[in-house]
Amino acid sequence: MGHVTAVYQIIAKREDLEKKAEGIALGLTVGSWTDLPLLVQEQLKKHKGQVVEIKETGEDPSSGKTIAQLHIRFPGENFSKDIPAILTTTFGKLSLDGEIKLLDLQFDDEIFRYFPGPRFGIQGLREKLGVYDRPLVMSIFKGVIGRDMDYLLAQLREQALGGVDLVKDDEILFENSLTSFETRIKEGKKVLDNVYQEKGHRTLYAVNLTGKTFELKDKARKAKELGADILLFNVFTYGLDVLQALREDDEIALPIMAHPAFSGSFTSSEKYGLSHSLLLGKLIRIAGADFSLFPSPYGSVALERDKVLKVKEELVKESVLKPVFPVPSAGIHPGLVPILIHDFGKDCVINAGGGVHGHPQGAKGGGKAFRQAVDAVSRGVPLNEAAEDIELQEAIRLWGWKEAPSN
Amino acid sequence: MGHVTAVYQIIAKREDLEKKAEGIALGLTVGSWTDLPLLVQEQLKKHKGQVVEIKETGEDPSSGKTIAQLHIRFPGENFSKDIPAILTTTFGKLSLDGEIKLLDLQFDDEIFRYFPGPRFGIQGLREKLGVYDRPLVMSIFKGVIGRDMDYLLAQLREQALGGVDLVKDDEILFENSLTSFETRIKEGKKVLDNVYQEKGHRTLYAVNLTGKTFELKDKARKAKELGADILLFNVFTYGLDVLQALREDDEIALPIMAHPAFSGSFTSSEKYGLSHSLLLGKLIRIAGADFSLFPSPYGSVALERDKVLKVKEELVKESVLKPVFPVPSAGIHPGLVPILIHDFGKDCVINAGGGVHGHPQGAKGGGKAFRQAVDAVSRGVPLNEAAEDIELQEAIRLWGWKEAPSN
Repeated sequence: MGHVTAVYQIIAKREDLEKKAEGIALGLTVGSWTDLPLLVQEQLKKHKGQVVEIKETGEDPSSGKTIAQLHIRFPGENFSKDIPAILTTTFGKLSLDGEIKLLDLQFDDEIFRYFPGPRFGIQGLREKLGVYDRPLVMSIFKGVIGRDMDYLLAQLREQALGGVDLVKDDEILFENSLTSFETRIKEGKKVLDNVYQEKGHRTLYAVNLTGKTFELKDKARKAKELGADILLFNVFTYGLDVLQALREDDEIALPIMAHPAFSGSFTSSEKYGLSHSLLLGKLIRIAGADFSLFPSPYGSVALERDKVLKVKEELVKESVLKPVFPVPSAGIHPGLVPILIHDFGKDCVINAGGGVHGHPQGAKGGGKAFRQAVDAVSRGVPLNEAAEDIELQEAIRLWGWKEAPSN
Repeated sequence: MGHVTAVYQIIAKREDLEKKAEGIALGLTVGSWTDLPLLVQEQLKKHKGQVVEIKETGEDPSSGKTIAQLHIRFPGENFSKDIPAILTTTFGKLSLDGEIKLLDLQFDDEIFRYFPGPRFGIQGLREKLGVYDRPLVMSIFKGVIGRDMDYLLAQLREQALGGVDLVKDDEILFENSLTSFETRIKEGKKVLDNVYQEKGHRTLYAVNLTGKTFELKDKARKAKELGADILLFNVFTYGLDVLQALREDDEIALPIMAHPAFSGSFTSSEKYGLSHSLLLGKLIRIAGADFSLFPSPYGSVALERDKVLKVKEELVKESVLKPVFPVPSAGIHPGLVPILIHDFGKDCVINAGGGVHGHPQGAKGGGKAFRQAVDAVSRGVPLNEAAEDIELQEAIRLWGWKEAPSN
């Protein structure tokens, strides 16, 4: 039946650590132990949680208490193999119990096989696009609430003409009478097919899958029928298990882009909630998204670089599950491409909103500038020396640029 | 189409408050404003977010920055009337944007009518039980993981014999071969019917509804068919919209008890996430639970009293939606009944695990002690003077008791 080992950060008095750890291991499994008859202990043995490790990692400056990591192993016998059951077991009641943060969940292979991981993953998406040797470039619709289809389609066309590989819906664009889900898919497809015929460049469109939970599957199947490329999904306002269900449905079988909307509610505190790498990395991967968006370490909505790199690591590291495209987002402009590629390698998506639309030549110019920046880095040319790349030079004049560190 | 007004707590420099508020109101709606042509402004007016109020409430001692409440109004035109859309709009990207906490969401009547609220509510549950004039008493199964049906049923019988009104599953009891969901419902029902025939006392059993999201409805309908009384549901590991879907399904039509497992991930920080009253109070109510469990202000897993009372207020205050039974939980023993009734009134559920099972006379004695305590308070008798109540006196000797404050 396998095991899940939960890694917690707790802040407590040093002398309480062991008792606290034992309390978790028993309290969240068989309840009590030493007062049980031997025969019952024998019967319950395979259900008992185990303290695997207690590691002191620091001192909380405000309270003088010890910061420690507790590793507790939960037997697979105790829970069904779904994310709600695993989260309830490892961090249900416990999430309410003082200064404790769930840093990681370590699954053994027996648990792992209950989870699908991405259907397409990085390689599958590259095959859809025919792009193998560079990061993908994505742009986001801008200011489309209250606008009609003509406006939205014109914006889509401009973005595609700039050469971006992906365009995503604004995550706050919901079902509405002007630009309905189905119309966006159908009409968007025509625009992108036209650009492909004119320019030979293929752009995929991630359409925002929204609405009531129990209507999502039908809506996603309909999207598939209508020829949708990718589903954008605000997973954290629904639930990770809903993402998994969308991934597992063979009649949907579309790539899924997980948006981090609402995830800051779980991850922002240093003392409570879940780590970024667990929520936006590991859990998104086991549930089966093909892309995971998260705050970049560069922009205004910034996240510390080491946390971001841990998210990326969980998305792409060696595993039986396919890797997920990391999409560091927010505050990205063409001048950051060297450092993005330095930090994330070629297997990432360079994603920009303002950095595309705010270009002096508009979204088309912005897309071009990004593609030029990616090419310049591939060729080993500093951005400011790619003089023939006019759109890139304009972007640099506006937003500046950063050379990648040499390491 | 109505409005939702979001109330945020932010920590920022005083001089940045207004810009920040405007940034939220525009950034999460139409994107930009002053640079739009007048004709477009006219078209987008009904979609534009509005800063309603900026209120300074204090100073953050660690940073010296101002703590403020921002009230921002979001037009209903912008989102579909479901909880995921509302949370994505009001606290999607924004949840990732520094020190910001969502304190409240204020719905006007036009938005309200899209949400069902509890199907039964306090009055409906009282009618099921035939108990009108006192708090309900609930106990929780204890240490049932790895145990068989005989063990579980014996424990159920003992609890019912003590006179508790409700018995709830352990929230970490999932589908398993020893005590399956369906068997628990069928066999549990027989036990409780027997107690009713023997003693004339009716106890209802809340069975834990678990498993994959898209299987929950079928499972709940099956539960209804088999005669289940109440569904226990770990809503926060699924999603509030899943709770709403279970509530809205007329073929299920069972009372739902919302468990706060995992909710600490969202609510524990003072600076991030959601307030307790919003998550465990208002949102649980609009989504349609009949009971909401939350940490009591007395026990080991304690929550500050003012926060707890705000949760209660959201559950029971005057509204077009039925009121929800508040269930302050953790650390409850019979000696706390006077203060519980002082704080929560008679419309609450007094819920105990250890305080029932840990009684010298076992669960039966524990249940009796709670019922005796409730009766003593009703009669205005201090607990230690209810001398004829033997089980209560035993409980008091073990755990002590507290007189309610006089106000």
